[in-house]
Amino acid sequence: MSGDIKKIVLAYSGGLDTSVILRWLQETYRCEVVTFTADIGQGEELEPARKKAEMMGVQQIYIDDLREEFVRDFVFPMFRANTLYEGTYLLGTSIARPLIAKRQIEIANEVGADAVAHGATGKGNDQVRFELGYYALKPDIKVIAPWRQWDLNSRTKLLDYAEQHQIPIAKDKRGEAPYSTDANLLHISYEGKALEDPWVEPDEDMFTRSVAPEKAPDTPTYVEIEFRHGDAVAVDGTAMTPAQVLTRLNELGGQNGIGRLDLVENRFVGMKSRGVYETPGGTILLAAHRGIESITLDRGAMHLKDDMMPRYAELIYNGFWFSPERLAIQALIDKTQEQVNGTVRLKLFKGQASVVGRKSPNSLYRLDYVTFEADSVYNQKDAEGFIKLNALRLRLGAMAKGS
Amino acid sequence: MSGDIKKIVLAYSGGLDTSVILRWLQETYRCEVVTFTADIGQGEELEPARKKAEMMGVQQIYIDDLREEFVRDFVFPMFRANTLYEGTYLLGTSIARPLIAKRQIEIANEVGADAVAHGATGKGNDQVRFELGYYALKPDIKVIAPWRQWDLNSRTKLLDYAEQHQIPIAKDKRGEAPYSTDANLLHISYEGKALEDPWVEPDEDMFTRSVAPEKAPDTPTYVEIEFRHGDAVAVDGTAMTPAQVLTRLNELGGQNGIGRLDLVENRFVGMKSRGVYETPGGTILLAAHRGIESITLDRGAMHLKDDMMPRYAELIYNGFWFSPERLAIQALIDKTQEQVNGTVRLKLFKGQASVVGRKSPNSLYRLDYVTFEADSVYNQKDAEGFIKLNALRLRLGAMAKGS
Amino acid sequence: MSGDIKKIVLAYSGGLDTSVILRWLQETYRCEVVTFTADIGQGEELEPARKKAEMMGVQQIYIDDLREEFVRDFVFPMFRANTLYEGTYLLGTSIARPLIAKRQIEIANEVGADAVAHGATGKGNDQVRFELGYYALKPDIKVIAPWRQWDLNSRTKLLDYAEQHQIPIAKDKRGEAPYSTDANLLHISYEGKALEDPWVEPDEDMFTRSVAPEKAPDTPTYVEIEFRHGDAVAVDGTAMTPAQVLTRLNELGGQNGIGRLDLVENRFVGMKSRGVYETPGGTILLAAHRGIESITLDRGAMHLKDDMMPRYAELIYNGFWFSPERLAIQALIDKTQEQVNGTVRLKLFKGQASVVGRKSPNSLYRLDYVTFEADSVYNQKDAEGFIKLNALRLRLGAMAKGS
Amino acid sequence: MSGDIKKIVLAYSGGLDTSVILRWLQETYRCEVVTFTADIGQGEELEPARKKAEMMGVQQIYIDDLREEFVRDFVFPMFRANTLYEGTYLLGTSIARPLIAKRQIEIANEVGADAVAHGATGKGNDQVRFELGYYALKPDIKVIAPWRQWDLNSRTKLLDYAEQHQIPIAKDKRGEAPYSTDANLLHISYEGKALEDPWVEPDEDMFTRSVAPEKAPDTPTYVEIEFRHGDAVAVDGTAMTPAQVLTRLNELGGQNGIGRLDLVENRFVGMKSRGVYETPGGTILLAAHRGIESITLDRGAMHLKDDMMPRYAELIYNGFWFSPERLAIQALIDKTQEQVNGTVRLKLFKGQASVVGRKSPNSLYRLDYVTFEADSVYNQKDAEGFIKLNALRLRLGAMAKGS
Repeated sequence: MSGDIKKIVLAYSGGLDTSVILRWLQETYRCEVVTFTADIGQGEELEPARKKAEMMGVQQIYIDDLREEFVRDFVFPMFRANTLYEGTYLLGTSIARPLIAKRQIEIANEVGADAVAHGATGKGNDQVRFELGYYALKPDIKVIAPWRQWDLNSRTKLLDYAEQHQIPIAKDKRGEAPYSTDANLLHISYEGKALEDPWVEPDEDMFTRSVAPEKAPDTPTYVEIEFRHGDAVAVDGTAMTPAQVLTRLNELGGQNGIGRLDLVENRFVGMKSRGVYETPGGTILLAAHRGIESITLDRGAMHLKDDMMPRYAELIYNGFWFSPERLAIQALIDKTQEQVNGTVRLKLFKGQASVVGRKSPNSLYRLDYVTFEADSVYNQKDAEGFIKLNALRLRLGAMAKGS
Repeated sequence: MSGDIKKIVLAYSGGLDTSVILRWLQETYRCEVVTFTADIGQGEELEPARKKAEMMGVQQIYIDDLREEFVRDFVFPMFRANTLYEGTYLLGTSIARPLIAKRQIEIANEVGADAVAHGATGKGNDQVRFELGYYALKPDIKVIAPWRQWDLNSRTKLLDYAEQHQIPIAKDKRGEAPYSTDANLLHISYEGKALEDPWVEPDEDMFTRSVAPEKAPDTPTYVEIEFRHGDAVAVDGTAMTPAQVLTRLNELGGQNGIGRLDLVENRFVGMKSRGVYETPGGTILLAAHRGIESITLDRGAMHLKDDMMPRYAELIYNGFWFSPERLAIQALIDKTQEQVNGTVRLKLFKGQASVVGRKSPNSLYRLDYVTFEADSVYNQKDAEGFIKLNALRLRLGAMAKGS
Repeated sequence: MSGDIKKIVLAYSGGLDTSVILRWLQETYRCEVVTFTADIGQGEELEPARKKAEMMGVQQIYIDDLREEFVRDFVFPMFRANTLYEGTYLLGTSIARPLIAKRQIEIANEVGADAVAHGATGKGNDQVRFELGYYALKPDIKVIAPWRQWDLNSRTKLLDYAEQHQIPIAKDKRGEAPYSTDANLLHISYEGKALEDPWVEPDEDMFTRSVAPEKAPDTPTYVEIEFRHGDAVAVDGTAMTPAQVLTRLNELGGQNGIGRLDLVENRFVGMKSRGVYETPGGTILLAAHRGIESITLDRGAMHLKDDMMPRYAELIYNGFWFSPERLAIQALIDKTQEQVNGTVRLKLFKGQASVVGRKSPNSLYRLDYVTFEADSVYNQKDAEGFIKLNALRLRLGAMAKGS
Repeated sequence: MSGDIKKIVLAYSGGLDTSVILRWLQETYRCEVVTFTADIGQGEELEPARKKAEMMGVQQIYIDDLREEFVRDFVFPMFRANTLYEGTYLLGTSIARPLIAKRQIEIANEVGADAVAHGATGKGNDQVRFELGYYALKPDIKVIAPWRQWDLNSRTKLLDYAEQHQIPIAKDKRGEAPYSTDANLLHISYEGKALEDPWVEPDEDMFTRSVAPEKAPDTPTYVEIEFRHGDAVAVDGTAMTPAQVLTRLNELGGQNGIGRLDLVENRFVGMKSRGVYETPGGTILLAAHRGIESITLDRGAMHLKDDMMPRYAELIYNGFWFSPERLAIQALIDKTQEQVNGTVRLKLFKGQASVVGRKSPNSLYRLDYVTFEADSVYNQKDAEGFIKLNALRLRLGAMAKGS
């Protein structure tokens, strides 16, 4: 095995697991390993990762700030579809994986690597998301997934390996964490260990991105979000880049206890798992986007989008971001957003983000058509013919049954 | 026209509008009018309706308590599908109309009436829902929709007519209401007048079924709901009938400021309209049902349901409850609910209903399959083949493009 | 009524019905009527229509050859989706109506007309298709549908009116046709009268575009069609315009008895009707397009398209060509066609068009992946993991049921 | 490995491949092997399989005639949905696999076996279909797929093994077949070898179930098929069992050259493959079923079915017959078939099966509603209101764009 691989690009966080992987790759494949560390808004310093990689002999170290690309090209397109997996989950982890995979392959092309490696386990969805991304973008790439290959399949073995190979272990990593987390600008997730019994409510002190609704301010916060072609472009009147928008909404949402979610979800690999999420800004953004669509989007287009959404969400969850069918649905979604312009006003209060106002230069909401008094534009008598022809097949059906 | 109709069954609330309609029908068609008043949990005394009908010379007066039938045969089947119209609306008005229509037709058959009449206007969805119900159940029925036919198309004309015809007008009905409402055990709606500008937040004093989240208790309430075949059968350990369940959840939800919704929706008749809703119990029930499904429903069945839901919601919203396609989708939905048994625990707090626990004798959530350590039941190496075959077409596609 | 309308653009065929309509419009509205006659490949001389219009005093006469636009912008986009209504109908009539409506509105804008008129009856789909097109493109247009308005609702009355108003009647139009027809470059339809009993097979002498399969040549004809981005661009090696392609395929199909269809369909206005169609070229084109997609289109994209197709077909059948949702689905369809390039070989024989060969520079069909012997590119052992993870939820489900 | 398995049930055809597998299982696992051979209409004698199994020392030999169960419980339910995979394929192989799997598991339960084995290769769909069936019905079953496990991965090695182990080889099996086939009462398939270039038309002498259209009778054959609840129950007036119906239609179709199909399809395991099929009776049955639905099925139900069909076809093709989502869709489909009763008349001629007549006691086709003259039951004026309200959102959309 070791003879086949020439050069590996590793998705490297700088933490214990990927540091062990780094060393294990070097030992096992006896080839150069290039590290790639991305800032996608996980809220951690990246320089320590560089130092650690240098210390472990890595020659080529990539550290990229991908936050704007993440929100602009991944988060926002997904939000145009009002995407929710299984009715509730905002796909915070799923949507970040294709970006990592894409950049990793770009680097592999730049440095002439023939393999990539990641630190996802063999039981989760992330291995699928990474690897489908790799294969879709570079079909001849070799993929190394150490967690599926090695025998370091327990915490103890991992720590032993680290010690034997002089890999520094942060003090707080010696004990086992009560759950594993994944974070980026859209969300933070918690799963495993302490959360495994789905009947038991998580501890309040687990949460890091939002105050408890109970501790949120006793008066509501109002916020106005402006949209252009379905994307948020300004918050409270200030124009912002995509990452700035999401950062600002995360602050507002976090302060008001918004965006916590506790669920059991269906993994692509076949089992159910329990996850707890904090997505403060995303939760506000979803409500706001539905709000602006409610006055600017045609009914036919909206219902079509709604019908497609669960499938689109499933594609993203399962790791098919770069598939032809995701791209085709995206073309459909984007086509519907051309007139989705305007401003939404929301009330944020103790865990809830509620739309309380919406306005648009392209509004399809017409007061003169809704009011009950005047018949200038809408002839109530038309409704009779409308109903009669809609009823015709039902009447014929009832007659045929003899009822 | 007047000569054709022999006997009319009128959906009669006892209020000003349907009282005027009652008299207008008597005058216009010169035939017997039978009144039908239903208790579907709207929270009003029905005896005054009887007295008023008697006073106006009605011979056959039907007053029926349909609350159990409403929840059992209409609300619960709909909730099995996690139904939301346009992503947010719980269809509180839509789901009550087919029941009214059904009972009205039953009465028409009992009393030998050849026509039915309702008080819905010519601009809304309710006329469609009533009439599609009538036609589907009795294809030769004649339908009278006074609001589309007469010229009493203003408040002033209506009051004048009432006065001329000795129809008593409640004092508080003389002035015009700031919005129109519709209520039943599932929800109350508000629309029109003061709500017509979708940029303006509704007044707090409009709401009647829930305290403001700001005024709800400062400590959370926890509730446990038990499901059997997808329907709620007990609350906090007490077995209840369907209507009792919904009544209890309405209390709990109302006390905690849960279930308010402010939206702009797309009417079937073609325009957008703004509606504000309170659905306290239904909001809790939806979250709870999703919660119990999350551990008892197979992924394939769940995603299938999710894909069908927007269409199912549209059918109900548009009034096609008795259509063959609604019945067919219902068969699909009901088939999936056979194992949806168990208990969900929710936290209710200042406007939010959050699932915090779920358990079931039929749980598909298996701790032994999720834990990352032991490989006894799930072989991580299987994931490689799974990913490789899922990736194959993506790789072939990339190769064909020469990328 | 007559005072409101200033100028009318009439979709004018030159036949008896629209000639009576022309005169009736002139008489009823006392305003200028502009005629518009289109060549969409119906196979009739258009100059007689001009003469007749002149004779009836029309000042502005539009006669346009729209054949290329018809095939390029309407027929081909529809065929990219392999569109069939109710599993069998190629939508030959439906797809022509939006083009007529579009051109009619363009003319209305050019000549400053405030109304348009058409000759479709009040029972069919065409009135809907015309009028939805008009309203979508010019929302304030006034629409005149004489068949729904006048009292000339029998053949006899129509002939009487024609005679009274000096409208020339072709000899063969005096007797009543045994069925009504509609023709364009894609198809000819027959319905009504002699076809009304769906148990009775149509007479052979009704057909005009194809020989009976029984009389078609006893040896097969082979044809090769080349596609680019999903559209046919060459036949038997000769590059052709869209209309030329369809014309050539009509010849080949007609000679071989291909493209006859006898069905009962569901009209948008609510009843079922029986139609018989000849679509020789379209039938070949559909088979060929499926053939080229079979080797160039990714599975995910293909299945997505297949899932959307019935809905897309329904939209076209119902007249929603210019709706936002049709445009959005078209964006999805078109996105999938980028690599749909190559050549298909078909055998045409006595009513059947069968694909017998396909090749493409972008082929996704890879001999090396299909052959059973060598394992160079596909590892059979991967299948085990693939199956096991696909089976996992089914196994968990069976366990939960205790089976 | 060999120590784990106690008893194996093998799907055994009696041919060379499964005979080698039988011996290989006995040698490798050193345990009892039970053979199971099914008559599903493949048209081969089964007694030779018994003799061969006896000769190879098999103690428990199951030979079952499953033809009626096959058509009644698998083929007919599938045809209720008008099922076509990728627009053309009638799923003849796919639908037989779940039945084999089901019976094999029943036998495993009867004889106390802990493992099952099949002879499908590691590149095809059949392995998936068998194994998903096994796992769904008996989640703890052990599955042996010799083709994925052994090293007999060439024809030569297989023949060598047979010779070394005294397995009799039919003379005509010594040379390699030009393609592999699979047959049952619904169809016969051909794939591989001589068919691998999708540009090359198959040889005429490959086909076994149908004459070439060129050699079919020069005069059409007419046939009448009667349906009850969506299933064919009589042919030409003679009541028949499900298997009898299909057998009779196979004769009629085969004589008239009907049901040949040459395509490139997308396998579930990720690659495209070329298959040629003969499905004479099924092709007639599909046309007939669409025909009877065309007059008995409500439009809403039909379009719903059509929308679901590609997904249902994909589930069957991929092997998910026993999945919860297939069962749920089946419930939907079956619900729609309650009134699908009546008789269809078809013309069979040189490769084509064309519906030429249909009648039903539950017909929804009403002459009085279709005829253009009389307005007794349908008021043409209703169409105006119908169109106007359908157009309303399109008009509002056009206004909002300022067009």
